[in-house]
Amino acid sequence: MLQASLRSGAAHRTCTFEVFARRLPPGRRFGVVAGTGRLLERLEAFRFGRNELDFLAQRGIGDDATLDFLSRYRFGGDITGYAEGEVYVPNSPVLQVTSTFAEACLLETFVLSVLNHDSAIASAGARMVMAAGGDPDAGGRPCVEMGSRRTHEFAATAAARAAAVVGFAATSNLEAGRSWDVPTLGTAAHAFTLLHDTEEEAFAAQVDTFGPGTTLLVDTYDVEAAVRKAVEIAGPALGAVRLDSGDLVVQAHEVRKLLDSLGNTSTRIIVSSDLDEYAIAGLAAAPVDAYGVGTRLVTGSGAPTASMVYKLVQRQDGTGAPVPVEKASQNKASAGGRKQAVRGLDHDGRAEAEIVAAETTVVEAGYTGRELQIPLVIGGSVQPGTTGPEGVQHAAQRHRASVEELPPAAHRLSEGEPVIPTVFV
Amino acid sequence: MLQASLRSGAAHRTCTFEVFARRLPPGRRFGVVAGTGRLLERLEAFRFGRNELDFLAQRGIGDDATLDFLSRYRFGGDITGYAEGEVYVPNSPVLQVTSTFAEACLLETFVLSVLNHDSAIASAGARMVMAAGGDPDAGGRPCVEMGSRRTHEFAATAAARAAAVVGFAATSNLEAGRSWDVPTLGTAAHAFTLLHDTEEEAFAAQVDTFGPGTTLLVDTYDVEAAVRKAVEIAGPALGAVRLDSGDLVVQAHEVRKLLDSLGNTSTRIIVSSDLDEYAIAGLAAAPVDAYGVGTRLVTGSGAPTASMVYKLVQRQDGTGAPVPVEKASQNKASAGGRKQAVRGLDHDGRAEAEIVAAETTVVEAGYTGRELQIPLVIGGSVQPGTTGPEGVQHAAQRHRASVEELPPAAHRLSEGEPVIPTVFV
Repeated sequence: MLQASLRSGAAHRTCTFEVFARRLPPGRRFGVVAGTGRLLERLEAFRFGRNELDFLAQRGIGDDATLDFLSRYRFGGDITGYAEGEVYVPNSPVLQVTSTFAEACLLETFVLSVLNHDSAIASAGARMVMAAGGDPDAGGRPCVEMGSRRTHEFAATAAARAAAVVGFAATSNLEAGRSWDVPTLGTAAHAFTLLHDTEEEAFAAQVDTFGPGTTLLVDTYDVEAAVRKAVEIAGPALGAVRLDSGDLVVQAHEVRKLLDSLGNTSTRIIVSSDLDEYAIAGLAAAPVDAYGVGTRLVTGSGAPTASMVYKLVQRQDGTGAPVPVEKASQNKASAGGRKQAVRGLDHDGRAEAEIVAAETTVVEAGYTGRELQIPLVIGGSVQPGTTGPEGVQHAAQRHRASVEELPPAAHRLSEGEPVIPTVFV
Repeated sequence: MLQASLRSGAAHRTCTFEVFARRLPPGRRFGVVAGTGRLLERLEAFRFGRNELDFLAQRGIGDDATLDFLSRYRFGGDITGYAEGEVYVPNSPVLQVTSTFAEACLLETFVLSVLNHDSAIASAGARMVMAAGGDPDAGGRPCVEMGSRRTHEFAATAAARAAAVVGFAATSNLEAGRSWDVPTLGTAAHAFTLLHDTEEEAFAAQVDTFGPGTTLLVDTYDVEAAVRKAVEIAGPALGAVRLDSGDLVVQAHEVRKLLDSLGNTSTRIIVSSDLDEYAIAGLAAAPVDAYGVGTRLVTGSGAPTASMVYKLVQRQDGTGAPVPVEKASQNKASAGGRKQAVRGLDHDGRAEAEIVAAETTVVEAGYTGRELQIPLVIGGSVQPGTTGPEGVQHAAQRHRASVEELPPAAHRLSEGEPVIPTVFV
């Protein structure tokens, strides 16, 4: 596309591409925008180096003009979008990239990869945090991200970051801690117990190293016997025990009773083992203090991609005037024109609609609400507050506020329609 | 675990960890091992640098002995495993890592991330290639990987590689082409058509640049009109047209008829649009020449992780003698001891069972068949033929041979049991 448009001259037309999801994953009530900070962190490094250019030349991909363009590539346009952490629904214009066709079309795969992955994880994670009772600072039970081993090694780090955006309390992914200052938390695996000649020796080694406040994994052999050993070795200050198999509801009750009977009333119970939002909800009445969530989080709990697309909605014509464009493809039609979006709020400040305007402005159409789009990149410069640890903190704040604003139906795990309708004006 | 085992002294015990999947994704008949080459390519670079060590020190993660160990870390043990591309079933010991506990336990997340991701993609892709008729050299219709934008940006490259292992003919991911010499193939998106003032101008620009042998996307506005324009502009040598929306079966028939009526009998029809193995099978009788597969491939077609685990199965005791170990956790029990595996074959060379032996050897137990485990790393040295472009080629060969050896039931897309049983001896 780059080569042919450079040759036809259309490459230099100013274009706006919009990112949106035509629909949410089946049954989901809302989605969460995530990955924006990661995208912006890498944007300035999105260049074509000698290795890449040599490969293209050697394969005969791209003529001289194309390779020359790539060698000088640096995004110099504008990006506007929903703040990271924001809730979205079908057709929310979550990102808009405005630049020449040549500059903007090269970003498509990168932009979509980051947003589709991270938003899928965040959208699943948000439901898990809700099922766990919401923000831990407001009484929810903490969720800990432990899924690195069940997804691609770099996707794992991004997933840990996305989990932090939607309110996970910590991650086992140390690289996410290093990159974005996310709280980290370690765990002992069954291998640590099996490594030692007896379970007692394993527990003693762990308590000896980390003190009684550590978390002991008690389901390697016999849970009841292990809990007794754990209490005997660590004493009343034992921090927590972890259950990672079997019927967690039944076991949580049994272990709580046993711990209490042994005087360890402040020892917490952490559960893990293929937890998802439904399993977490099913444990709401069980005496559980924290959830370790792995596979189902990092694979998006049934929806591993957010299915966002990157569509050309506006371009210059031959005279330089902006023209809205849209395709008419069966079941994949798009709406032309650069969109404005506000979240329509009722008198109590509760979200009631996603107002999306193309040909006119939202204000002209008589709608008011919370404006959803903010400048992210201006003339190639990434705007402050969007990247690094600060970006994650802002995103987590935005997410909490956006979720609080939603109608109560947002908390339903049962399948249903998006929690607010998208209204095109 | 590292810190506590360094302190207890158990860190230095020689251990074997095994990687296996307890079960296949629901209904799947077999899995495909993939990612081994990627794993081995990165193994020698798996170190802890100044940035990582500083972060750990600053967070207070790891005492001096632990950080000192990490600063000198380099895997020096042995790895044995199924060849990349090999078929696996439940409890196949697809990888064995033997070293000290400290050395081997640090690899867990890395090993599982790579194998779980790449094997999930390969296992889904293998079914798609089968549904498309198998190896293109033997009459199958080529499948092209086009899913980069629907998964994490680095997972995308790994997915393109995994697709090549199971017989995809090409990928749109240029970085996979650069890294592993995988054939690449570009496509024009709807944006290219929308960029130009008319569809004719877009087609003319593409044909002008790439010649008539190019593939024109014909479903931006009206398919019939677009096909007529495409033929008019490119002539009888038009390479292909692509359909990316709507009812592909109906449209493929209509477009074939139209192309033939216009004299373009050699112009091929390429289809894409959320294809998976079932959609590909549904198009078997339609006049389609190639499949572009995206989202459903890179998300594992419903099974985005292979759910492999990394379990300690053998360790030294205090005297240095090897001891098999296993956990007894409810629904997650493991079988102790380092396993041998052969694929049991019948008189016609058809696979009939996965023979897995722990306490004894397969030969002693009276079984014969094709040995499945090969040395991958010896004393920290990666064995030749496993990495880079050569690794992908060998894996693709291994995959073709392994699939050919399976019973016909392997080709069934309907849900069912693993195609061969796992027999423990």
